[in-house]
Amino acid sequence: MGEFDLLERIRERLPPAGPRTLLGSGDDAAISVPGGVTVTSVDALLDGVHFRRQWSDPARIGAKALAVALSDLAAMGAEAGEAYVVLGIPTDLDEDGCLALLDGMGRVAEETGTTLAGGDVTRAPALTLAVTVVGHAERPEDLVTRAGGGPGDALVVTGELGGAAAGLRLLEQSEAPDIGHARGGSSSDALIARQLEPKPRLAEGRMLAKAGAGAMIDLSDGLGGDARHIAEASGVGLRIEAAALPLAAGLAEAAESLGRDPLELAVRGGEDYELLAAIPPERIGEAASEIEKHGGTVLTRVGEIVAGEGLEIRLPDGALLEATGFDQLS
Amino acid sequence: MGEFDLLERIRERLPPAGPRTLLGSGDDAAISVPGGVTVTSVDALLDGVHFRRQWSDPARIGAKALAVALSDLAAMGAEAGEAYVVLGIPTDLDEDGCLALLDGMGRVAEETGTTLAGGDVTRAPALTLAVTVVGHAERPEDLVTRAGGGPGDALVVTGELGGAAAGLRLLEQSEAPDIGHARGGSSSDALIARQLEPKPRLAEGRMLAKAGAGAMIDLSDGLGGDARHIAEASGVGLRIEAAALPLAAGLAEAAESLGRDPLELAVRGGEDYELLAAIPPERIGEAASEIEKHGGTVLTRVGEIVAGEGLEIRLPDGALLEATGFDQLS
Repeated sequence: MGEFDLLERIRERLPPAGPRTLLGSGDDAAISVPGGVTVTSVDALLDGVHFRRQWSDPARIGAKALAVALSDLAAMGAEAGEAYVVLGIPTDLDEDGCLALLDGMGRVAEETGTTLAGGDVTRAPALTLAVTVVGHAERPEDLVTRAGGGPGDALVVTGELGGAAAGLRLLEQSEAPDIGHARGGSSSDALIARQLEPKPRLAEGRMLAKAGAGAMIDLSDGLGGDARHIAEASGVGLRIEAAALPLAAGLAEAAESLGRDPLELAVRGGEDYELLAAIPPERIGEAASEIEKHGGTVLTRVGEIVAGEGLEIRLPDGALLEATGFDQLS
Repeated sequence: MGEFDLLERIRERLPPAGPRTLLGSGDDAAISVPGGVTVTSVDALLDGVHFRRQWSDPARIGAKALAVALSDLAAMGAEAGEAYVVLGIPTDLDEDGCLALLDGMGRVAEETGTTLAGGDVTRAPALTLAVTVVGHAERPEDLVTRAGGGPGDALVVTGELGGAAAGLRLLEQSEAPDIGHARGGSSSDALIARQLEPKPRLAEGRMLAKAGAGAMIDLSDGLGGDARHIAEASGVGLRIEAAALPLAAGLAEAAESLGRDPLELAVRGGEDYELLAAIPPERIGEAASEIEKHGGTVLTRVGEIVAGEGLEIRLPDGALLEATGFDQLS
């Protein structure tokens, strides 16, 4: 099947375009009517680097690629708009696999109100996905960067942490020949789902923006590393209480079976795609109530911003988690 | 060198952002102030599929990747805005190579008024570039799709055809061990430059749009195939006179040394990145004069649109070039 045939098949299956899209895939370029400001991010995912095909299936890989890209728009408090997808196809992914991948992506597009407005298809030595997403807002001041956190702001986190990192470890463990069936149980499945099927917190991001968030970031590289980005961009210090962190359900049990510290997975692991935001403390109640009403996501206060610099995560006994240890888990 | 270090080095070298860019690389997403409508296109280029590293150098590969993507904006008559770049780096491309590639891209960005506003960097099995470009226009009716050509329109082409295809054949020939030095001479160099250093016809595209172009496309796959896209999208027939086609300087000589028909290279070869547009015949003079004044590009009338369908290319003796032969050169 040639590139043109595959593109034609893909176009036939695309969900309907949203109202901003005047012209979708099939011409030299797509035409959109933007909001007052646009927010754009691009993410690349490659087999063997960002995912492993043997751990997932094309539909979930496509869904994750779009979800991960949209998570950056969530972190800006933007409304999802359009996505443009490069699909690099290796020889061992057949037409059905390509279409399943696009279907998975299409499902996330429909769930999030995103229009798949264009793309490019090519041969590639490994399955390659590059997703550009465009979000919209009325005014620049409706958006939240990493740079506007100030002393006195409370730090809040959406949802639960550590699940995706535990899921990754469970997948790795299931591959080791001697302990192939060590994983099991529904809580393990839920943790693995956190790794394979992340959800972008788009509505939550917009609600946090409306509640006056001064700085926000999505937790892709792990709380430790990402919190540090806010500290640097805002020129402030972040203080987080380890005991307050919302650990994923089943994390303690999974961590024990993996020989890991659950806190390590929550702080140093990545890919939870939850949001960390700095908001005025008096507005936490309003934000938490809006967010929980919307989709049941819990908002948790985990710390505060202080004058100074850097990130400190305080353990229940008063000791600090070692600052040098906040790299992404290898 | 880690991903974050390389990104930091890249950011330091980026040309200054344009006035539309409120926030460039370094946060979760870039923030732009769009025009009334935006035009977006994405192109992927992989080593071994779209280029060969041994024929070029990183700076020219980076420049070509951006130029090729911008050519789609030219074909819409849009103003260049922002570019977002995925760079997939193989183990044998070192830091200097990556930075040279970005410098080449930065040069094209400066020449075209494009802001390199964001991107992603990853390991990859082969050098991979995915470039998303965003262009702007005030109103949808300022843009030109493939679909608005009507009977009576004249067909015009910018610049010269066949040069990039001849350049590709010369590069291929230079690799064959027995005829390693067959190429030579300044006209060969110019043809090879057409292959390795394409120029997006952005100003020309805007001028053709202003002169009332009803349909326009950039010649990436070859005149034969691309003209057919206009015929299909506009629901009309295209009639082109082979004798009128503006063949690249030195094409006849190169074609002879390659054992090819120059017309075959001009019609079936791709990658000239010239524009083919359908405009009212009475406005050709105005458009040609504007375009030549701007940068010396010649506009050539090559045919017309008729009621009906399909593409006919008529040879000087009245015979038709075979319709089945308009595939891209293999």
